[in-house]
Amino acid sequence: MKLHGYFRSSASYRVRIALNLKGLRTEHLPHHLRKGEQTAPDYLALNPQGLVPTLENEAGEVLTQSLAIIEWLDETHPEPPLLPKDPLRRAKVRAFAMVLACEVHPVQNLKVLARLRQLGLAEEKVTEWAAWANREGLAACETLIAGEPGPFCFGPSPTIADLCLIPQLANARRFGVDVSGFPRLLKAEAAAKAMKAFADAAPDRQPDAE
Amino acid sequence: MKLHGYFRSSASYRVRIALNLKGLRTEHLPHHLRKGEQTAPDYLALNPQGLVPTLENEAGEVLTQSLAIIEWLDETHPEPPLLPKDPLRRAKVRAFAMVLACEVHPVQNLKVLARLRQLGLAEEKVTEWAAWANREGLAACETLIAGEPGPFCFGPSPTIADLCLIPQLANARRFGVDVSGFPRLLKAEAAAKAMKAFADAAPDRQPDAE
Repeated sequence: MKLHGYFRSSASYRVRIALNLKGLRTEHLPHHLRKGEQTAPDYLALNPQGLVPTLENEAGEVLTQSLAIIEWLDETHPEPPLLPKDPLRRAKVRAFAMVLACEVHPVQNLKVLARLRQLGLAEEKVTEWAAWANREGLAACETLIAGEPGPFCFGPSPTIADLCLIPQLANARRFGVDVSGFPRLLKAEAAAKAMKAFADAAPDRQPDAE
Repeated sequence: MKLHGYFRSSASYRVRIALNLKGLRTEHLPHHLRKGEQTAPDYLALNPQGLVPTLENEAGEVLTQSLAIIEWLDETHPEPPLLPKDPLRRAKVRAFAMVLACEVHPVQNLKVLARLRQLGLAEEKVTEWAAWANREGLAACETLIAGEPGPFCFGPSPTIADLCLIPQLANARRFGVDVSGFPRLLKAEAAAKAMKAFADAAPDRQPDAE
């Protein structure tokens, strides 16, 4: 399989963790987002949004959108599972993941921040915007798992929730968010960071890291 | 079951369509977003993001995030299915839905537009922002299903993709987007609008419609 990504993209980071947890090797094809490589015609033919990641599977089929890719990986390579078996627990895990994948990450991604700059917003205000989106979403996530013993977001092993959380915490810190008010999220992060699958997926461990 | 929503919320609209397709009756509990009712302490205890929809199921369990709710409905009430059986087709449907649920809707929701106004953006620029998010996402969606015969987004019956598309097209028009350049999306919309489950879920058919 081939994973089109970018070392710092948190959506790519989620898929890298999933591939590592499943023990799947892929060829990594970096696209430098800050240089606009994701808008090259060849890449847009694979991913019309011009976003990363894109996964090309063994059959040459093209998959886009990180959570759709991860659900596909979990359905086609079920071990270890990234979602619980119980429908209600699955819904809780997916909802947590979607707080980050829907209301946090897309509101603070490169494209949206670039648009804010085009509207004349000062750099300080752009950072404040990104910090706001992260703070609000992470605060909701902290509440969602306050009663979960852990150590991961939902139990003793990682789920899609952790795959979204770890990259988002890195983003939040990059935008200056004080994450010390989210002890339950930090507990999940500590458990995740102790696993090689997570550590190997980190941005600074990727071949295109700067 | 009880559905906490708002007539004009497109995330609530998605869940209303799903409930209608599954033939499930629910009590509708409206929260007026423009009056800030979703930030009342009682509601935040159910949904810490202060967003709609929230579903309370027969057991009193609380589910949040529209796509997580819809996946749960599909897992617990499998007929008619809202996702194909084949993993690759499921991934395509989910990716289409997530273009709208991740990169379009949250970037143009009430919360984000209110934030833009707080930053001093003129109303015209706020509308332009919302139109931009819709135009970009819908253009990607048009490409994603260009080769699909339809009439729905992915075949002869509605999927999660259609549940996200129909509300989003309504939003796009509200923000002045010319959708005539998306003939494949309009074909899916025509098929959907002919179904009672979609028609009954429309904002202007809800008890809290203004």
